[in-house]
Amino acid sequence: GIKMTSFESMMEFSQFKTNDQGLIPVIVQHYKTQEILMLAYMNEESFYETIKTGKMTYFSRSRQKLWVKGETSGHFQYVKSLTIDCDLDTLLAKVDQIGAACHTGNPTCFFQPLVGIDYDETNPLRIFESVYDTIADRKEN
Amino acid sequence: GIKMTSFESMMEFSQFKTNDQGLIPVIVQHYKTQEILMLAYMNEESFYETIKTGKMTYFSRSRQKLWVKGETSGHFQYVKSLTIDCDLDTLLAKVDQIGAACHTGNPTCFFQPLVGIDYDETNPLRIFESVYDTIADRKEN
Repeated sequence: GIKMTSFESMMEFSQFKTNDQGLIPVIVQHYKTQEILMLAYMNEESFYETIKTGKMTYFSRSRQKLWVKGETSGHFQYVKSLTIDCDLDTLLAKVDQIGAACHTGNPTCFFQPLVGIDYDETNPLRIFESVYDTIADRKEN
Repeated sequence: GIKMTSFESMMEFSQFKTNDQGLIPVIVQHYKTQEILMLAYMNEESFYETIKTGKMTYFSRSRQKLWVKGETSGHFQYVKSLTIDCDLDTLLAKVDQIGAACHTGNPTCFFQPLVGIDYDETNPLRIFESVYDTIADRKEN
């Protein structure tokens, strides 16, 4: 079925510290795996659309218009929580991601290593996550 | 002792897509807990300083100068990995955080909820993490 959840925000968009285009960056994190999926930007309208619909809605800087994430791909992001940082200039969204977050088909936009090792591969938490997901999946299916 | 690790980047800063101030946003995530700590910005100099020293170094937009995170507080961030996103305009840094990431004393800058519940509290992964940290701590001490 279609999920639809409305939230009320504890703060208004006008209280946020936006950049000179009136935008605020949003870090998008998977609510369960804690994986970082992408960074996007919101203007006032997209913030309130996100809260009203429960679906992450951004302002596309390249197309200069409102962008409901997943509207063409079906890869919606359902809002689990929104948090703001200490100086009110960045949002953190925890989401349930349908399909791949990245337009390249990668699960996350951050798939190109620059330096260091991907600790995740050897992280016992990561292994536990993977086992947990399998168990949850088997329980459901 | 003093940790000092040099890295070589797979890409040069000049290949990144910076904003009109020549900066690129950096999402900072704890490499172990996966918690988002802060969002900060790097210019070219701070990027290469970060790689050279292994300590997260930003460009302070308020002070308009290089900022070695932790230089006054001692709350350094040691680089575990750096990743760039699909359109080369955002970095993800996984770090080992010494002390609190936030200048307010909070472990993370994202401590002000706007909407939704903090799923972390009931997340079995989070509970596992906490148990794991305790075990790791006991092994070390």
